[in-house]
Amino acid sequence: MAPDNTGSDKDRSLDLRGTTEPLPASRKVYIRGRLHPDIRVPMREIKLTGTNEGTSDTPPDPGSAPWITVYDTSGPYTDPDASVDVRLGLPPHRLDWILARGDVENDVDLKEEFHGHASRTSMPDAVVERFPEESRRLPLRGKYGSCVTQLHYARRGVITPEMEFIALRENQRGEELASFLTVQHAGENFGAAIPREITPEFVRDEVARGRAIIPANINHPESEPMIIGRNFLVKINANLGNSAISSSIEEEVDKMIWSIRWGADTVMDLSTGEDIHETREWILRNAPVPVGTVPIYQAVEKVEGVAEELTWEIYRDTLIEQAQQGVDYFTIHAGVLRRYVPMTAKRLTGIVSRGGSILAKWCLTHRQENFLYTHFEELCEILRTYDIAFSLGDGLRPGSIADANDEAQFAELETLGELTRVAWKHDVQVMIEGPGHIPLHMIKENMDRQLELCGEAPFYTLGPLTTDIAPGYDHITSAMGGALIGWYGTAMLCYVTPKEHLGLPDRQDVREGVIAHKIAAHAADLAKGHPGAQQRDNALSHARFEFRWEDQLNLSLDPEKAHAYHDGTMLQEDARTAHFCSMCGPKFCSMKITRDVRDYAAKEGVSERASTKPLAEPRP
Amino acid sequence: MAPDNTGSDKDRSLDLRGTTEPLPASRKVYIRGRLHPDIRVPMREIKLTGTNEGTSDTPPDPGSAPWITVYDTSGPYTDPDASVDVRLGLPPHRLDWILARGDVENDVDLKEEFHGHASRTSMPDAVVERFPEESRRLPLRGKYGSCVTQLHYARRGVITPEMEFIALRENQRGEELASFLTVQHAGENFGAAIPREITPEFVRDEVARGRAIIPANINHPESEPMIIGRNFLVKINANLGNSAISSSIEEEVDKMIWSIRWGADTVMDLSTGEDIHETREWILRNAPVPVGTVPIYQAVEKVEGVAEELTWEIYRDTLIEQAQQGVDYFTIHAGVLRRYVPMTAKRLTGIVSRGGSILAKWCLTHRQENFLYTHFEELCEILRTYDIAFSLGDGLRPGSIADANDEAQFAELETLGELTRVAWKHDVQVMIEGPGHIPLHMIKENMDRQLELCGEAPFYTLGPLTTDIAPGYDHITSAMGGALIGWYGTAMLCYVTPKEHLGLPDRQDVREGVIAHKIAAHAADLAKGHPGAQQRDNALSHARFEFRWEDQLNLSLDPEKAHAYHDGTMLQEDARTAHFCSMCGPKFCSMKITRDVRDYAAKEGVSERASTKPLAEPRP
Repeated sequence: MAPDNTGSDKDRSLDLRGTTEPLPASRKVYIRGRLHPDIRVPMREIKLTGTNEGTSDTPPDPGSAPWITVYDTSGPYTDPDASVDVRLGLPPHRLDWILARGDVENDVDLKEEFHGHASRTSMPDAVVERFPEESRRLPLRGKYGSCVTQLHYARRGVITPEMEFIALRENQRGEELASFLTVQHAGENFGAAIPREITPEFVRDEVARGRAIIPANINHPESEPMIIGRNFLVKINANLGNSAISSSIEEEVDKMIWSIRWGADTVMDLSTGEDIHETREWILRNAPVPVGTVPIYQAVEKVEGVAEELTWEIYRDTLIEQAQQGVDYFTIHAGVLRRYVPMTAKRLTGIVSRGGSILAKWCLTHRQENFLYTHFEELCEILRTYDIAFSLGDGLRPGSIADANDEAQFAELETLGELTRVAWKHDVQVMIEGPGHIPLHMIKENMDRQLELCGEAPFYTLGPLTTDIAPGYDHITSAMGGALIGWYGTAMLCYVTPKEHLGLPDRQDVREGVIAHKIAAHAADLAKGHPGAQQRDNALSHARFEFRWEDQLNLSLDPEKAHAYHDGTMLQEDARTAHFCSMCGPKFCSMKITRDVRDYAAKEGVSERASTKPLAEPRP
Repeated sequence: MAPDNTGSDKDRSLDLRGTTEPLPASRKVYIRGRLHPDIRVPMREIKLTGTNEGTSDTPPDPGSAPWITVYDTSGPYTDPDASVDVRLGLPPHRLDWILARGDVENDVDLKEEFHGHASRTSMPDAVVERFPEESRRLPLRGKYGSCVTQLHYARRGVITPEMEFIALRENQRGEELASFLTVQHAGENFGAAIPREITPEFVRDEVARGRAIIPANINHPESEPMIIGRNFLVKINANLGNSAISSSIEEEVDKMIWSIRWGADTVMDLSTGEDIHETREWILRNAPVPVGTVPIYQAVEKVEGVAEELTWEIYRDTLIEQAQQGVDYFTIHAGVLRRYVPMTAKRLTGIVSRGGSILAKWCLTHRQENFLYTHFEELCEILRTYDIAFSLGDGLRPGSIADANDEAQFAELETLGELTRVAWKHDVQVMIEGPGHIPLHMIKENMDRQLELCGEAPFYTLGPLTTDIAPGYDHITSAMGGALIGWYGTAMLCYVTPKEHLGLPDRQDVREGVIAHKIAAHAADLAKGHPGAQQRDNALSHARFEFRWEDQLNLSLDPEKAHAYHDGTMLQEDARTAHFCSMCGPKFCSMKITRDVRDYAAKEGVSERASTKPLAEPRP
């Protein structure tokens, strides 16, 4: 650490470049809790012009909703009334809830990194500023013997503030909606049990059954509670993380804020280079979304990258270090059993998970079982003390279409099911990670087996990518498989960016990756018939039909890009009000002609039921 | 037409900007026919380095194929040995085949536009250069009473050169492949009957059954035969077309060459502005892929955009004019029946098809049945004289999720089935256009009903888009639905670009749109188990595993973008040879560790079958 790297020149380094304005025509609103009146659930309201501009003689349509309310992951950054200082971190709004439960105490077994200098090498370029001492809180832990997990409370029948927060959030309810907006297809949800309204009790029940998790480390009180489960909106995760050869802490914090702006529900900090600890501290203190990590990356850093030298003790201490910082879920590859490793030898692409390959190497070298498996009960003890969720890693996931759904993959999944039951025994929340590279027709088997083997614990998949041949466009191959598996029941999709397999994503790649997977998640929500999912589609299409360009653009998932594309193509002066668009021009706009048809039909009272003699006999 | 707009300043206007170099590491090869030795089927061969670079002491892998052969839509433009002059047009290589059949004659009923000046308005900006007189051929037509369709020949048991061409093309066979490349998942194809090898007889049989079409106007002898049917590779179409307020002829011709470079199997010229005729002429004379149009766009142009003034005679003459030019398939909205129009009145977004809305307006105004329906037998007479395929338009397709799978949509589909049988009676080839905006769970019903109602005639869909809320990213929403419906049995996907709903696509949008839908088509081919589809995935993944970066990048669908992304992120000097990538850095690369694991296993002869005592009892 460089002590002189403090003071006035800090401001430059964490400049938030254009990530904090509200999105167009949007305002932040907060919904109050009923059971817990101090709850304030942030939502985004998108203002509609609410007028029917289609014909000059039609008065404004009173049935149009003036506002549409949508789920908002962006945190206080998009609230002009919130003062945000990344050097202070976000307000710890959950802290009162956590303390009120009376089951936590200060964590006195502090890991070195909390006291001062993190262990660092001498690489000067990689040294980053330390998160300010005056902004730090001492970490909490569950009192000796107590379990502080949401699963534990749920099983005891307690509806926590987090659960009520989530119920309000999932409903996406704002003002009364025009009737056409509430029209919705029934959906087909493969046995999921999605109610018409999400209640706090429903949230509690789903958590108690293990069908959903609320990643909410007691040391991350800045987070806005969210839920991952197949009876809720499909969520997406965005990966952050520097690496030994590129990126920097400023970029990573900025990427976090940037990715939640576009809709990331959680972020994973996958840093592997220098300053892992401080990078994570900056991200956590400023993250309103749950943060996940893969602790083995840092553990193996501590043994200078030599996988064989890893020990349980080094790993455990790393876990506690991260737990004290506030990480909400850990990817842990405890299912990579020694006997499964040879199953990968004949694969086209072997083991492609970093964690999985580290552990495979460790098992083979030591001729011992994976220490994460043998120490799994101790892992549970740690995780229940901070309420960290397991994200049981699929270290043997297929890395190519050729290796999809093979013996190694499903052998590991069976072990993940076994570990799920162990975690549940300890009241620890669990989700299961999934593939990977899978062709369309083999995706459903993944979902079906996961539900069966893992007792309906939430599934969290990376894609799956539906082909291997599109480097540069793998956000699309991944969103394609993600939409399908989300429909089948996957609870969260890990995003993939256009740079997947090629390099580290930059800001635009992150945005493209997030939006592609928001599309997948939303397409899945529509298909499952999630209540209210179709409102935004209906509102946008209605605006489109009425040539309310502003509304159409503002309602889109990426309103800034939609505005830029539209304004760039239309004649500038007419762009925002034109009753046609540049695809067809004024004469041929089909929507314009349809309006004429509808007006004509209304005036003439057409009843065109006269039948026409068919040209051919009907098919028997 | 401007007579002075000829001569030396022409060259500038049709400059092919960077579209004619071969793709990286690729060469054009031609496969000779057996039944018809003058057949030369163009394929693209991608050179692999063919060496195993994974470990320094491993010799080059003799099992790696030095070349991978892939389907090639790009025509002579990517062949350095072909001299291409857009002012001459491509060589009419099919002309001998057509003349040899002895059933055609010169078309003496020439439409005005063939003799000289096309009908044009006085808008000077829109006037484009006329395709050179000296490069023009007189059009052909079937001799009086004769039918010149591929369907006609197929039903009579004739294997045309076009059919053999297609059989060779579909197999994608080049040199002998390494055994791992031929490994392939079985696929699930919903009753489609895909053989392990495509033979000329199989092509003939599929065409004879009406399950596949070969769009091949006798006046478009420049085209390289291709087939559209669910037992063949899924194809994609790219739309071109100027409009009254933007684009130009140069851009359109260039866009055609550009879109086939990236993989468009057909193009549709959807021009609606001035100079429709000459734009089409330039495109056809230079297009090695079939060209489709929506003739009603030009017909309604002739009545100055006033849909009500359309007549059968104007439409018919437009059809013949385009037939003489060489258009290979026509979108014809003959299923928009008068009695179906009121079914759309309560829709959220009414009628969104341009052709559909023009005809709906016509029906309502005249209180008569759609003239395309009442004159359908005459349409068949025209199409069989030139071998143009029907693409029966879905004028009532849904324009929003809310309107998906409604009464109007399926009523029209039933009529399209009726018209299919009429066309088949006349030996005219038919495909059926499909939606549109459909949520994931309602896509399959579209395919199932189409197969049933339309006697397995090929389905050609626009997307479907799986949500309405992603303007700016609708190439992704469309590719998502397209992959699914392609897997279910759709034969061709119409592309959608990122500018859909917002404006006219530029070159980059076209490329993004084409690649997104190539991904969808390929994902569907993999899922259906199309023979050989997985070879390219296997080759790319094998290269990835072995850190053969050049091969991995060259095998990708867009090698130029893959190279740019990769080279831009890696340290420049190491980028092409590094045994790791920038996501993980040198220490943590999982593929590198896996290689170590595999080497270790090979040396030590690990047999890790020792079982570990489970932590929990297996699930009953």
